[in-house]
Amino acid sequence: MAVEVLESLKQVAAQLGQTVKLHSSVFILTDRNVWDHYGQWLLESYPREDIYILEPGEGSKSLHAASVISDWLISRKVSRDSLIINVGGGVVSDLGGFVASIIKRGISFVHVPTSLMAQVDAAHGGKNGVNQAGLKNALGTFSVPEAVIVSPEFLKTLPDRELLSGFAEMVKHALIYDADYLAAIAEYDLGERQLEGLGALIERSIGIKCEIVAKDPHEHDERRLLNFGHTVGHAVESLSLNGDANPITHGEAVAIGMSIEARLSVEVGLSGQEVVVHTRDALTRLGLPVYHPLLIDTEALLSLIEGDKKAKAGDVRWTLLRGIGQGVSGVSVAAKQLLSAIQSCRLELSA
Amino acid sequence: MAVEVLESLKQVAAQLGQTVKLHSSVFILTDRNVWDHYGQWLLESYPREDIYILEPGEGSKSLHAASVISDWLISRKVSRDSLIINVGGGVVSDLGGFVASIIKRGISFVHVPTSLMAQVDAAHGGKNGVNQAGLKNALGTFSVPEAVIVSPEFLKTLPDRELLSGFAEMVKHALIYDADYLAAIAEYDLGERQLEGLGALIERSIGIKCEIVAKDPHEHDERRLLNFGHTVGHAVESLSLNGDANPITHGEAVAIGMSIEARLSVEVGLSGQEVVVHTRDALTRLGLPVYHPLLIDTEALLSLIEGDKKAKAGDVRWTLLRGIGQGVSGVSVAAKQLLSAIQSCRLELSA
Repeated sequence: MAVEVLESLKQVAAQLGQTVKLHSSVFILTDRNVWDHYGQWLLESYPREDIYILEPGEGSKSLHAASVISDWLISRKVSRDSLIINVGGGVVSDLGGFVASIIKRGISFVHVPTSLMAQVDAAHGGKNGVNQAGLKNALGTFSVPEAVIVSPEFLKTLPDRELLSGFAEMVKHALIYDADYLAAIAEYDLGERQLEGLGALIERSIGIKCEIVAKDPHEHDERRLLNFGHTVGHAVESLSLNGDANPITHGEAVAIGMSIEARLSVEVGLSGQEVVVHTRDALTRLGLPVYHPLLIDTEALLSLIEGDKKAKAGDVRWTLLRGIGQGVSGVSVAAKQLLSAIQSCRLELSA
Repeated sequence: MAVEVLESLKQVAAQLGQTVKLHSSVFILTDRNVWDHYGQWLLESYPREDIYILEPGEGSKSLHAASVISDWLISRKVSRDSLIINVGGGVVSDLGGFVASIIKRGISFVHVPTSLMAQVDAAHGGKNGVNQAGLKNALGTFSVPEAVIVSPEFLKTLPDRELLSGFAEMVKHALIYDADYLAAIAEYDLGERQLEGLGALIERSIGIKCEIVAKDPHEHDERRLLNFGHTVGHAVESLSLNGDANPITHGEAVAIGMSIEARLSVEVGLSGQEVVVHTRDALTRLGLPVYHPLLIDTEALLSLIEGDKKAKAGDVRWTLLRGIGQGVSGVSVAAKQLLSAIQSCRLELSA
């Protein structure tokens, strides 16, 4: 798999042109938001009838959507030598990667991620999927794209809040793997939205994610490092989605999760207080949240964390920090340690 | 992947018991026909609520069925450590293997094939799939079962015509790979339906299929050997399904396909007349057909063979015979050579 971080959309188009040559036919999957901004650019290289435009949003990550796209591909005479190019955020790459991995028992695909979150996270590592029966990514495969082609130029049109959401995953990469990278993120001036400097950060995040995934592609151990911030994060995200008119983004949920899980690392004796300070400072400097009022509903939170896995509290395995840049997975945590971590965070903020 | 050919259902149950131990939960997928014969046997080891019973037949090989089974598995708290056991013919293993390969991005599964066709062919090699938009196996994955557990005892309840259908694939294995095996099939007395002798033949067929698949799991070259008889066979099967009140079985279609494609091997100069004689004798001795009246509609036949792949006649690559036990793939054939092979078959039969 090739990963390329290219400066301009012109370079992206040229690189895609090279890749397309190797295939008998090519299809583009994108969503309406991306189409509004980059439709003209796509039409310079590909005819309209070979482009499928999804409704934006998580609702498109369904088996039904996969079925409709499959019908469309079959009607367009897709073959085992065809190529699918997924141009969009995480929904497009998750759904498009899944369809490519099952049509004709798997054809080649390329991701062109257009959101920061997809550029540093979703488009890499070979996981794809759709939601089923209310469960996120309940169906999917591990399937590696032929290439991931990244350009910060796409980020010019990305809403601020979505850009920030991507930064949360970048901070996560630094916290679990590379203290120097955390310093580099701290030096980046998000206010001015310098795209040049951002490219270098994106490259480092991709490097960390790919290094970790290469050691454990199917998530048996090492890859679990990437779950840091996601145990509390997913629970807060669910609470917010259920109860809030303006729910938090995935990245904001992960930021809150990392803030709590850094404190939890201290609670269980893995690390000293400096881990809490560095995590909090990195997040607040970017403008990411470190706490959410919904965390006070500890019963709902615990029930979501333990999930419907029939797991007792102690059975959940956490990814925590041994220090800055040193994630560790498979940690057991007692419920009271989690509650104590949440309380210490709340007390500090109200102090 | 382990393949076991066991004498009795008792041994099958014991072997499954050993496999199940390694998993957090286990689910059985079967169909109503198999359930009628072996439901009691399954209930000795597994509770009814962990068994899903499909409607028999090709109609169950759909993305809709995959969705319904996924919902059921999720409601039963399927986890990444769960196991699915597919007990049935090719439809059950194709659908069950597909669901297992996508739920939670892939969980373990075991095939217990109950038809001869599934025992010697469908359950091995890692291909699974469902039909979509009228196209057979348009969606699917390559995914290898944890084990395939075979017992000829299941064949006691198999209708004669389905048993014969399985023999067609066994003859194919012999023709493309092993002349001695063709002699062994010829010595088998199908009339008495001796299950003991059948076990040894099944083992040889599995061995041939697995040897070929091991060299080329994703069907880029070597695996195409297994397509012998299937180019004409699939076309005749489609014609028969569209026009016939009592359509031929897949195995009968493959038998007719092998009969024609053996003659085609002579037409293109790959082999001598003895290939035609041995193929015809092997099939007729078993009571399998070597010709079908629908072959006279050469226009419909050619259009089905060339398919909707936009392929010209010459673009279809055939698997033919260089001799008995020597398949060869990637052969180009002119339309008039095919028509000549069909005519020579018809003339001989009417002589």
